[in-house]
Amino acid sequence: MWGKQKIKIPVEVSARHCHLSKDDLEKLFGIGYELKKLKQLSQPADFACEEIIDIIVGSKKFEKVRVVGPLREQTQVEISLTDAIGSGVIPQIRLSGDLNGTSPVTLVGPKGTLDLKEGLIVAKRHIHCATEEAKKHKFKNGDIVSVEIKSDRPVIFENVILRVRDDYKLYMHLDTDEGNSAGINKIGEGIIIL
Amino acid sequence: MWGKQKIKIPVEVSARHCHLSKDDLEKLFGIGYELKKLKQLSQPADFACEEIIDIIVGSKKFEKVRVVGPLREQTQVEISLTDAIGSGVIPQIRLSGDLNGTSPVTLVGPKGTLDLKEGLIVAKRHIHCATEEAKKHKFKNGDIVSVEIKSDRPVIFENVILRVRDDYKLYMHLDTDEGNSAGINKIGEGIIIL
Repeated sequence: MWGKQKIKIPVEVSARHCHLSKDDLEKLFGIGYELKKLKQLSQPADFACEEIIDIIVGSKKFEKVRVVGPLREQTQVEISLTDAIGSGVIPQIRLSGDLNGTSPVTLVGPKGTLDLKEGLIVAKRHIHCATEEAKKHKFKNGDIVSVEIKSDRPVIFENVILRVRDDYKLYMHLDTDEGNSAGINKIGEGIIIL
Repeated sequence: MWGKQKIKIPVEVSARHCHLSKDDLEKLFGIGYELKKLKQLSQPADFACEEIIDIIVGSKKFEKVRVVGPLREQTQVEISLTDAIGSGVIPQIRLSGDLNGTSPVTLVGPKGTLDLKEGLIVAKRHIHCATEEAKKHKFKNGDIVSVEIKSDRPVIFENVILRVRDDYKLYMHLDTDEGNSAGINKIGEGIIIL
């Protein structure tokens, strides 16, 4: 599929954060509340919001967790496996939006508290890629690749899934455990390899 | 050096912990105090102690950090890069014992507090190997290898240093960031590859 071609890719590390549904936003922040955009993120559709909430996972509480917009069909909280240590909860490693059967989590906002039966995940590492760019490299949505990170803590991440959509921009997303294990604090560079 | 040979290796994840010098042990626990062995560790010389202390790194405090024996020439505190997030301190990634110019750290014991000018590190990933075993595979102390972890979060760790000593047993040691990024909670298995 890829031949011997090596493709450079920017790598971003996602700290713990959450996505909210419209109903859950209103339960946490009040009826009619709308998200306030703080900062555009690398994917054109996504933005960090001014809103922060507290998250309770088992016996652990995380304060000031950033909300990421836009609103989604279902609320989703993303933490790292390190975050989960000592909480009594072992979240599943899932792609964003794949929440069936995931762990329970509690969200605490200024106007209300929400006990969700599912929605807590550790994000599965993935690459965002525009449809045009995917065509150029002859790959398709769902393909699996490896990505080498050259740093003072070099790592090859295997089993990295490609997510292709018209409006995506080419970026790899790791969580904080993965970023730290590869010597990447917030932003770095990888090479897609076979 | 290794040819096409692949060698299975047990992998252990080290949580944050500290090693103490005799002087520092006495400053924290009192004159004449001796470490109490709680549990033998995989390396025959090493043992987890009953003793726990608090560790202060910049603006963060970690409670109940395990002391690991035996006593050493110089006190050393090992945390993960995730631990360091938000502390204002970025510890260097170092091999155990290589402490010159590392970050300051404060240790709080039942009988005293110790402000060290250096001694805080993130452990550089490494393999312990007995001299006999090293001979068998034709490698030597300081050689660099890669180790593949096959799990639901597969990773190849590059730049893994081999530490060879008569009394070592074959084990790879990762910190919690590395373990979590590879889907290993406490114990797993790797394959040494070229």
